[in-house]
Amino acid sequence: MKVGILGAGQLAQLLAHSAYPLGLQTLVLSDQAHTPATRNSQYLIADMHDPTAMEAFVGQCDIITLENENVDVEILQSIATDKPLYPGIEAIACAQDRLNEKQFFQSLGIVTAPFTAVDDLGSLEVAISQIGTPGILKTRRFGYDGKGQFRLQRGTQAQEAWQAIDKQPAILEGFVDFSAEVSCLAARNVSGQIVVYPLITNIHRDGILRQSWLPGDDTHQQQARDMMVAILEKLKYVGLLALECFVTEDGLVANEMAPRVHNSGHLTIEACATSQFENHLRAITDMPLGNTNSHGTTCMINLIGNLLPDSFRPPGQVHIYDYGKSPRAGRKLGHVTVHSTDSDSIDAMVAQIQSLAD
Amino acid sequence: MKVGILGAGQLAQLLAHSAYPLGLQTLVLSDQAHTPATRNSQYLIADMHDPTAMEAFVGQCDIITLENENVDVEILQSIATDKPLYPGIEAIACAQDRLNEKQFFQSLGIVTAPFTAVDDLGSLEVAISQIGTPGILKTRRFGYDGKGQFRLQRGTQAQEAWQAIDKQPAILEGFVDFSAEVSCLAARNVSGQIVVYPLITNIHRDGILRQSWLPGDDTHQQQARDMMVAILEKLKYVGLLALECFVTEDGLVANEMAPRVHNSGHLTIEACATSQFENHLRAITDMPLGNTNSHGTTCMINLIGNLLPDSFRPPGQVHIYDYGKSPRAGRKLGHVTVHSTDSDSIDAMVAQIQSLAD
Repeated sequence: MKVGILGAGQLAQLLAHSAYPLGLQTLVLSDQAHTPATRNSQYLIADMHDPTAMEAFVGQCDIITLENENVDVEILQSIATDKPLYPGIEAIACAQDRLNEKQFFQSLGIVTAPFTAVDDLGSLEVAISQIGTPGILKTRRFGYDGKGQFRLQRGTQAQEAWQAIDKQPAILEGFVDFSAEVSCLAARNVSGQIVVYPLITNIHRDGILRQSWLPGDDTHQQQARDMMVAILEKLKYVGLLALECFVTEDGLVANEMAPRVHNSGHLTIEACATSQFENHLRAITDMPLGNTNSHGTTCMINLIGNLLPDSFRPPGQVHIYDYGKSPRAGRKLGHVTVHSTDSDSIDAMVAQIQSLAD
Repeated sequence: MKVGILGAGQLAQLLAHSAYPLGLQTLVLSDQAHTPATRNSQYLIADMHDPTAMEAFVGQCDIITLENENVDVEILQSIATDKPLYPGIEAIACAQDRLNEKQFFQSLGIVTAPFTAVDDLGSLEVAISQIGTPGILKTRRFGYDGKGQFRLQRGTQAQEAWQAIDKQPAILEGFVDFSAEVSCLAARNVSGQIVVYPLITNIHRDGILRQSWLPGDDTHQQQARDMMVAILEKLKYVGLLALECFVTEDGLVANEMAPRVHNSGHLTIEACATSQFENHLRAITDMPLGNTNSHGTTCMINLIGNLLPDSFRPPGQVHIYDYGKSPRAGRKLGHVTVHSTDSDSIDAMVAQIQSLAD
């Protein structure tokens, strides 16, 4: 069976790597020759907006999935008339737009930060009067890693904020007083089986994920499970879904979801019986889903802007993933996972690697 | 760092797959375009006997290794003048020749079956009179999966046996009364660190490995460790070494060694903290070697001649490796691993998969 993947970055690369022990082949659609996933997968180089190329791509695959939710819905609709596309278009479209996403969460009783839609400077001023400051103005579409966002400290910053996000349709989100950021990962297969991962604790810097840890927060696991099951079942979702949440005194507050494998789940390769990548592939090919239990202690460290020096020789419990990209400031070039199955602390090793990575 | 691999079959494919989480790239040397490892590794298509092509290959790599020990020593010598080649030529040359190999084992006090060199029909008759029957006539070179072998039941079969092995230089091995066949896997890195795997129990049919199990024989682990350490240190071996042994009432009897990763070690991917493939790569790049402890119960089933039917959906504890070869009777097309981390028996699942595979 051949799985087509729209996109050929590191998420597609990691999916292709996980396809092999499942007896699956992958074909990635790449917009250029040298991308992470063209290194370890069959590939086709084409523009998604070229209908002839897309027909050739889809024709070679049994099932289509994606590594990035920001694909034109028209393209997805065209694919879905031909072959099974997972996750479904409803889920992807919902995740493409922060306003729809937040309203969807609310419809399921899932708590979010307070928010108001912003379409122009006037509605931003109204939103500020409703939500107050501090707050964050976020474009409804195409935001990631802190891009398309502006932090409002004072109500007088409306014009500055509106310029900063290029006057795009947006939402103003109120401030959430949180003690930690966590990810909930869960998967649902075609037959409806659901598995939920233990909560992963994330550490961000400058809006970019730097470290993820397992075990993470374990006091909100039941709430996370309930939220994930509600979302997966409402959307009849197929594949892996990631939901980023804030941990507050009143429990989890949903921030945003990604209808795909997620950077914070890379550590599931080492930490869990079945990785997020394997369970995504199991879900879309309707295999039974694998056990998500984590064991030991695991930390993933993102390599941003530069890789580790060649002189670093990883001990047995350390794995290094080099996506094969050319270095550039702020670019995710790879990640490192430190994993201990026993009770030994990994803090010293994590600190050493983080200092080499910085 | 780029690791060059001579050969592009499934062992190279599995090595390439394991290189990625170590931050390593691989370049496989293939004699044709469509081989298992050209699916997931950078590759160069060339004949090993073409010096210009070999120069180009070696020039692109930092370290060279191999997936099959039957490479002309002259080619290996030429490579080794340019770049580090692991395992070393002495080890590879020793393993290429059953007579040298057996004599080497004896020099270390490692017990083997009784054997005598056979160079012609006359010396075969002498050998039969010394060793007795039943016995096995084996060509000194290029034997694998039972090829180049003839079982002598009676002394009168000398001529028939000599014809059957194409009158090649050979050894006659005496009969060993064994209760099980096991593999010892161990690795030594450039710095001299050694790790030994728990003994793996193997089940053969028609001279071809069908199943491997972990935990295997655990009563001879200390003897296995002593033998492996003696061999690795004597040869100053670098990389993974596999030694096939018979289990007898008097302990382990060494059969043959393979200076490379080994079919019986495929299950170490799921069964052990660090797989044979990862430890081979760690060894030759002088990284610290990883923990070899096994956990749970694991069985590998070779897929010979045909793959599993598409309708089989592997449960979470089952992984399927499809090497991507075209089916042919007797050909190793892939393998399946069944792994349980808890005390649940995997016997029923193994039986089901074996019956689908047969």
